[in-house]
Amino acid sequence: MSTEPPVVGAIEAGGTKFRVAIGRSHHLLADATIPTTTPAETVAASIEFLRESKHRVEAIGLASFGPLDLNPHSPSYGSITTTPKPGWSDTPLLEMVRGSFDVKVAIDTDVGGAALGERTWGAARGLESFVYLTVGTGIGGGLFAGGRTHHGLGHPEMGHVVVAQEQDDSFEGICPFHGSCIEGMASGPALRARWNHPVVDLLDRWEVWDLEARYLAQALRSITYITAPERIIIGGGVMRQQGLLQLVRTKLGVELAGYGPSELVDSDLEDYLVAPELGQDAGLFGAMVLAQQSLAT
Amino acid sequence: MSTEPPVVGAIEAGGTKFRVAIGRSHHLLADATIPTTTPAETVAASIEFLRESKHRVEAIGLASFGPLDLNPHSPSYGSITTTPKPGWSDTPLLEMVRGSFDVKVAIDTDVGGAALGERTWGAARGLESFVYLTVGTGIGGGLFAGGRTHHGLGHPEMGHVVVAQEQDDSFEGICPFHGSCIEGMASGPALRARWNHPVVDLLDRWEVWDLEARYLAQALRSITYITAPERIIIGGGVMRQQGLLQLVRTKLGVELAGYGPSELVDSDLEDYLVAPELGQDAGLFGAMVLAQQSLAT
Repeated sequence: MSTEPPVVGAIEAGGTKFRVAIGRSHHLLADATIPTTTPAETVAASIEFLRESKHRVEAIGLASFGPLDLNPHSPSYGSITTTPKPGWSDTPLLEMVRGSFDVKVAIDTDVGGAALGERTWGAARGLESFVYLTVGTGIGGGLFAGGRTHHGLGHPEMGHVVVAQEQDDSFEGICPFHGSCIEGMASGPALRARWNHPVVDLLDRWEVWDLEARYLAQALRSITYITAPERIIIGGGVMRQQGLLQLVRTKLGVELAGYGPSELVDSDLEDYLVAPELGQDAGLFGAMVLAQQSLAT
Repeated sequence: MSTEPPVVGAIEAGGTKFRVAIGRSHHLLADATIPTTTPAETVAASIEFLRESKHRVEAIGLASFGPLDLNPHSPSYGSITTTPKPGWSDTPLLEMVRGSFDVKVAIDTDVGGAALGERTWGAARGLESFVYLTVGTGIGGGLFAGGRTHHGLGHPEMGHVVVAQEQDDSFEGICPFHGSCIEGMASGPALRARWNHPVVDLLDRWEVWDLEARYLAQALRSITYITAPERIIIGGGVMRQQGLLQLVRTKLGVELAGYGPSELVDSDLEDYLVAPELGQDAGLFGAMVLAQQSLAT
């Protein structure tokens, strides 16, 4: 006789909206979307949703935008640290939620959460190591290794890796820290800035997506050679562009240039570089996994 | 009453020489150096050294140059695969050693072995995650995470990450696969090729080491943002250049541009980017750790 999975709460904290849900295993019992305004307002509304529900949650998981302090020995563990998002620096997110509930609350990055969601119910089931990369307003990545999302000194910030300027491109990049890192060159806002048009006006211009695919392939090459993942899941708003995933696979093959394990370089990369299976729900489902895991420890 | 540590054999297989040793804990009882000629000759001599010793080994660890097949489900597990080193492609190193002894034999990459050595007795004691990078004839890196050296689809090949051409440099790089990856731009042979002089004639030319440090800092930035390690140990022949380590720290600070966890970006990086403590012995000692670990499982 198996025990019924616990009812848990989940908050996916994003820069534009918070998604809040109550679920059991990967079934949603209730959910809501709350616009991201101020920490006081948005976090309070999220907490209220969970408290007012007829479902009593046994644990809560948070998957949040960052950077986050994820050092368990730090006094500001679970806080959003120095984000460019106005009003949100030094927000003690974990503490705010913990203070309102008498249950365990666990936290990870948004991409770490999405990685956990995909590992449990999506495109990374059964894998021992993989990377989850999202390409949208920003570019972020989570590394799953050794049975959990990897943190060390901080958490991965894959959007800020080095890429080399493509010879037919003179754009200098928009990252306020590094200029031409992959986020500065290939995020949604970078596309808009380089081509001087909203992305929706660029959909049919092959040169836009050819260049985009080459930059993403450069970043994926470095991720591949540094972490040797079994798979890379690549999602986010920009990746919804028709045909882009396949184009990135092709360019990644060019970048690898035949160097690497034969399972990788002798393949068409269709099993290696894949879309998320949980789509927009990966982060929210990941927060549910975090909550469930916290009950097991 | 504590049990005495086991006597183990260790082979560090390098492209120029094999180092073979018998040891207990981190004490060498006997050791030898064997030039790398052909697999048949060099591996046989290594085996003979271990067999003829008066010390009976209880397990053997191998730390080898690669690329290696480290997929335990592969029929060629423990083989050197497609190395550019003449005569060594498809060498079943693990099988050759296993066939000559009735004890457990474990294998990892040379840099994975060095990482294990540093984790156990050197500059990474007590850390949960770190990177070991070597800059010499080639550039290679091992990632330690989740209690062990990390492998996924193959093992890390950090020498092949993307770096951006520095504006005052027109050198195209010497990697046969990628041209201007970090190994193609900053390994010992790359230095020799760019400046058209043996490295020993370049020691006093500051522009050589300034450029070298900038390229290494680029690679270290990508490694930092992708794996968020607690520390990076950087060794190898090129790093023996006087003052280079401190120069790389300075350039890495420039590359990070203040973005990352405060423990990192508000520091002088002296605790973050460090020299190996075991120096030339890290790989051999790591092979001893591999052997000891194999007895515990």
